[in-house]
Amino acid sequence: MIIPLHPRLSDSELKELLEITAEFGVRIQPIIGTERSVYALLGDETVPELISRIEGLPYIDRVDRIQAPFKLMARESKLAGHKVSIGTRKIPGDFCVIAGQCTIDPNNKNFFLETAHAVKEAGADMIRGGVWKPRTSPHSFQGDGKSLEILLEARARTGLSINTEVMDFEQTALCVEAGVDCLQIGARSALNYRLLQEVGRLTKDKGIRVLLKRGMHMGPPSEFILAAEYIVAQGNPDVMLCPRGTMPPMEGYRNHPDESITPLLKEKTWAPVVVDPCHSVGKAVYVPNAALAAVAYGADGLLIESHCQPKKGIGDDPKQAVTPDVLAQIIREARDLHQRMRRLSHAGA
Amino acid sequence: MIIPLHPRLSDSELKELLEITAEFGVRIQPIIGTERSVYALLGDETVPELISRIEGLPYIDRVDRIQAPFKLMARESKLAGHKVSIGTRKIPGDFCVIAGQCTIDPNNKNFFLETAHAVKEAGADMIRGGVWKPRTSPHSFQGDGKSLEILLEARARTGLSINTEVMDFEQTALCVEAGVDCLQIGARSALNYRLLQEVGRLTKDKGIRVLLKRGMHMGPPSEFILAAEYIVAQGNPDVMLCPRGTMPPMEGYRNHPDESITPLLKEKTWAPVVVDPCHSVGKAVYVPNAALAAVAYGADGLLIESHCQPKKGIGDDPKQAVTPDVLAQIIREARDLHQRMRRLSHAGA
Amino acid sequence: MIIPLHPRLSDSELKELLEITAEFGVRIQPIIGTERSVYALLGDETVPELISRIEGLPYIDRVDRIQAPFKLMARESKLAGHKVSIGTRKIPGDFCVIAGQCTIDPNNKNFFLETAHAVKEAGADMIRGGVWKPRTSPHSFQGDGKSLEILLEARARTGLSINTEVMDFEQTALCVEAGVDCLQIGARSALNYRLLQEVGRLTKDKGIRVLLKRGMHMGPPSEFILAAEYIVAQGNPDVMLCPRGTMPPMEGYRNHPDESITPLLKEKTWAPVVVDPCHSVGKAVYVPNAALAAVAYGADGLLIESHCQPKKGIGDDPKQAVTPDVLAQIIREARDLHQRMRRLSHAGA
Amino acid sequence: MIIPLHPRLSDSELKELLEITAEFGVRIQPIIGTERSVYALLGDETVPELISRIEGLPYIDRVDRIQAPFKLMARESKLAGHKVSIGTRKIPGDFCVIAGQCTIDPNNKNFFLETAHAVKEAGADMIRGGVWKPRTSPHSFQGDGKSLEILLEARARTGLSINTEVMDFEQTALCVEAGVDCLQIGARSALNYRLLQEVGRLTKDKGIRVLLKRGMHMGPPSEFILAAEYIVAQGNPDVMLCPRGTMPPMEGYRNHPDESITPLLKEKTWAPVVVDPCHSVGKAVYVPNAALAAVAYGADGLLIESHCQPKKGIGDDPKQAVTPDVLAQIIREARDLHQRMRRLSHAGA
Repeated sequence: MIIPLHPRLSDSELKELLEITAEFGVRIQPIIGTERSVYALLGDETVPELISRIEGLPYIDRVDRIQAPFKLMARESKLAGHKVSIGTRKIPGDFCVIAGQCTIDPNNKNFFLETAHAVKEAGADMIRGGVWKPRTSPHSFQGDGKSLEILLEARARTGLSINTEVMDFEQTALCVEAGVDCLQIGARSALNYRLLQEVGRLTKDKGIRVLLKRGMHMGPPSEFILAAEYIVAQGNPDVMLCPRGTMPPMEGYRNHPDESITPLLKEKTWAPVVVDPCHSVGKAVYVPNAALAAVAYGADGLLIESHCQPKKGIGDDPKQAVTPDVLAQIIREARDLHQRMRRLSHAGA
Repeated sequence: MIIPLHPRLSDSELKELLEITAEFGVRIQPIIGTERSVYALLGDETVPELISRIEGLPYIDRVDRIQAPFKLMARESKLAGHKVSIGTRKIPGDFCVIAGQCTIDPNNKNFFLETAHAVKEAGADMIRGGVWKPRTSPHSFQGDGKSLEILLEARARTGLSINTEVMDFEQTALCVEAGVDCLQIGARSALNYRLLQEVGRLTKDKGIRVLLKRGMHMGPPSEFILAAEYIVAQGNPDVMLCPRGTMPPMEGYRNHPDESITPLLKEKTWAPVVVDPCHSVGKAVYVPNAALAAVAYGADGLLIESHCQPKKGIGDDPKQAVTPDVLAQIIREARDLHQRMRRLSHAGA
Repeated sequence: MIIPLHPRLSDSELKELLEITAEFGVRIQPIIGTERSVYALLGDETVPELISRIEGLPYIDRVDRIQAPFKLMARESKLAGHKVSIGTRKIPGDFCVIAGQCTIDPNNKNFFLETAHAVKEAGADMIRGGVWKPRTSPHSFQGDGKSLEILLEARARTGLSINTEVMDFEQTALCVEAGVDCLQIGARSALNYRLLQEVGRLTKDKGIRVLLKRGMHMGPPSEFILAAEYIVAQGNPDVMLCPRGTMPPMEGYRNHPDESITPLLKEKTWAPVVVDPCHSVGKAVYVPNAALAAVAYGADGLLIESHCQPKKGIGDDPKQAVTPDVLAQIIREARDLHQRMRRLSHAGA
Repeated sequence: MIIPLHPRLSDSELKELLEITAEFGVRIQPIIGTERSVYALLGDETVPELISRIEGLPYIDRVDRIQAPFKLMARESKLAGHKVSIGTRKIPGDFCVIAGQCTIDPNNKNFFLETAHAVKEAGADMIRGGVWKPRTSPHSFQGDGKSLEILLEARARTGLSINTEVMDFEQTALCVEAGVDCLQIGARSALNYRLLQEVGRLTKDKGIRVLLKRGMHMGPPSEFILAAEYIVAQGNPDVMLCPRGTMPPMEGYRNHPDESITPLLKEKTWAPVVVDPCHSVGKAVYVPNAALAAVAYGADGLLIESHCQPKKGIGDDPKQAVTPDVLAQIIREARDLHQRMRRLSHAGA
């Protein structure tokens, strides 16, 4: 939909506009209102070159795009109904929990193994453990590849599948080779299109799932879904969308909680939504609230940081990891509320 | 805490700073760090004139204030433990629901009476009905004082107490005279200090409660609490804080949901928090999600727009009012989750 | 323009939609795209009741409004070409400067008179002086009506016209009676529709100008222009729009500078734009930058806080008032750049 | 500075706090205020592990960090006074302009060569030309490596140095090998720490400059400066900071203009600031305003998109590239205003 700057286009302006759209094989349907006119584009209005040309005209205010700019992720795509497996759960439909330490301390292997057993006991479906860490300052500790072995050992011992974050091509290749079950793409990488493509390419046909965190600054739901489209376009549909709070923070929290985006995502895409309450609020004491709020908004699962002894953890764990005891209670309440919300939504619709 | 622009103050800069603080009877304690120094203010650092003087010095970056700028609303104030009554409920502690039409249609009195009976049946503790409406455009319908009589009749017929919004001194006086049980101050008035004072002054010692909506652009929790301090400072402690979404909106909602501010408010103030999910998301289909999310975040109550026939309502009702049926289900689940969250929070703490 | 949630409306959905629009005498023109359809409203699409009804339908995503919601402020209105006089300047066209103290200290009358003479000398066209002050905390100094006499005396002595802020009906009536030349409506009152109307009503046909500050949280240009429409709709067209920074602040400034909204306002309205750089950045040292940036963006004037001895001022003056010397330099450079920008804009168009 | 949740720490809380800080060799200085106490950290308060441990304590509200988290970029670092050369200009000090097409069309080599000559004629100091393009949708044109040869030919013909954007390790290596004079890191890559490090590593000691765009979602100045620290920490100090507007956009522009961050950056770092007005406003007609506003805020240079025939450009050029004629006028006015602002700032300080 083309919106002119002023109420009417002059004849010469309309003529120029028609010449441009004709170049792209697109027709125009004027909509003559009582006070002003707009012009509908009939045809593929998603050609960026066409939009750029039209918006460059000094008498045009803007072009509003109606079509969803993503194809594979859309609810109407051929992938509609696709489900992602996490342990024995299939989402959307079931409810899954991924839990474990933000960061694996390479000098404290036993902590991680203990945590792994404890989160299994608490009811988690997959173990998370951070091997490499993105840090705002180049002078901070960046993680250690040796932790990957600890993560693999935790899988062997517990029988649960595992998840870790990758930040570049090399880490991705290492994890794919090692058979990590689920790769996480962090908020800072959510616009790193080259990484999204490489992760999609390397995980294709290998049964490896991808958990994509929402960029900490992403706005509309479509921006997030489009980032996932980069992965799926490479041939791997096992993608989960993970809201984790946005910036700037709500004063008192680490980020601005964004679990409320969940229904808006689910309206536009078939992909499951797994919310990370820990990064959102950034403090263990608020995690039960944020976790249950995510379920109230219709999340298909939770990603929760948990540590057997949070005060002795590294990275974010002392601040935002809950104990396995609290995790168990969250999981129990979350599964219950998930059932209740499904009934309530059906009533409301 | 005074933060200089550069790592150290020079002797002459420090001398000037000391002269200024001495004028206000405040002392300074330097804190000499390895890389830079800061200067603590000992004494009443909340004097705005002092802060303004210090921040005006070209070698000072800023003054960080540590003390809470509100006195009566603070958890440590003499009002700590005060509870507000809504029908038979006392909050915080119990859980209350205020429900009814956004706008009373003066030409459809029977709709409102029917709605009033239905929300009582559904389990609400107080009836809301909009008499006057703030509108973004001066050319829109602004409400009609005759609706006040309809609201009073609904109280007489149902026995429930009533709530309506006031926007100026005259409306406030009318409602106080008519004995309306609860005055609502809308988001657009949340910074209208003169109105806040007048509402506080006129409701004092009359048992009239005040529901203060969060300004749609308010940032930190303290900004909201300070607005309430204006009311309480006039002598009426029966104040409820009502988050209702902020601007700019999350694309797809009417506002940006902000129920997550609830725990941050409750940490700083004794006052109860009653969340309005309807304005937050702005569409009836999402209201059950937003309502339960508010409870997950620890809300003491909900303000919900409900209409016996939403499609025939006026104002926002066709868009964001739920039917009494859906309201009943929300109330049932909300009361249940409120109990569960109290147990879960105690476990997490 | 009606945007459905899904690519196509079903027959029964379209039927219901047509019934609703028919009630309002509005027709619908479907625009059938290759991938999805939208529906244009032909007729007055600004009826809020109609939009609310349509947006309440569960299969509708939203209604995009194309028509400008304001009538008198629009560039196409009968008021197009209207100019506001400030001293000998007429804006838009000329360039005007309003300068003076944020706050008149009732205990330091001579400061204000000295400042008044100094800003006249520096080249200002109107004197500002704050009589009453909105304060975030109820425990802060709120101003003193006696300052109004000092302001009137400054006018008598310098021959310059005067400007002050009003916050309620009573202050407005006092200033109108005293013949203050220009009433300022502060950022916190920009959504106080009842005050906007009262100011418009009382100043009508009296030659009193109104300077409307942008609400510190206002978003799109149209929100600001609509607030001004409230005043003009009462019969007083002498309105100036005053951007003054928005919240949340850019870290390091008092607010988030918003002079860049100027060209967007001027594209939609005939009203002049007078920018306040002092509240925007909040620190005297940055005021010359922010002032000239406003001129670069096409402002018709500046509102600048200046004090003969800033360090001895009260309110915001110690922090953000410039000395008359600096003011004189800003005015000289601003008038020069204003001329240059007009040539440059004509070249660019 | 450690801020407790409540006015005072209990003895046992303080004891636990002291034990933790002792582990890190850091001492604590209590600051006992009249209404509440805070606790200063004496020693290196920038250890993330320490801060995480303290903020994890349930009775602590937060830790405010005073020290600048960057070392090499700070105004107090050994690099203070370093200048970056662009053609014959050295910034900060001189004023430089980088101009050229957003995107080189591989099918229209002559356009780019013509543009290159024209921007030289207009007074630019360096030519920009986009070889590869990050695109929000995976289905959009992503650029073409063949354009690199066209860019090199433009340098050979005009004698001006050249600038292009790189998005991954491979593109970086290609450009370094080809001897491109200045690598641009785009807004979407501003948090891609692995790319920042690789660019720093590969350009070290080769005289290659790096233009770092501000992330479209970055908040405080320090976040931007820290990203540059990643590059400089690898040994290349020839870094320029480039604000280019942030998200969400001001309605009517492509982004939210952010030239006003310039003085805040320059207060904290020695590095030059080169503003991109074209991405900020996103429409050619506003570029002269935004360009001059950047100079008013103290920018050391401008990055401007210019095309010999904008309507025939690709990528963003039809929308936001100015003609060489307009470019020439902008450069003339910008150099003049740059001189004036230096005088004005000295007066204001």
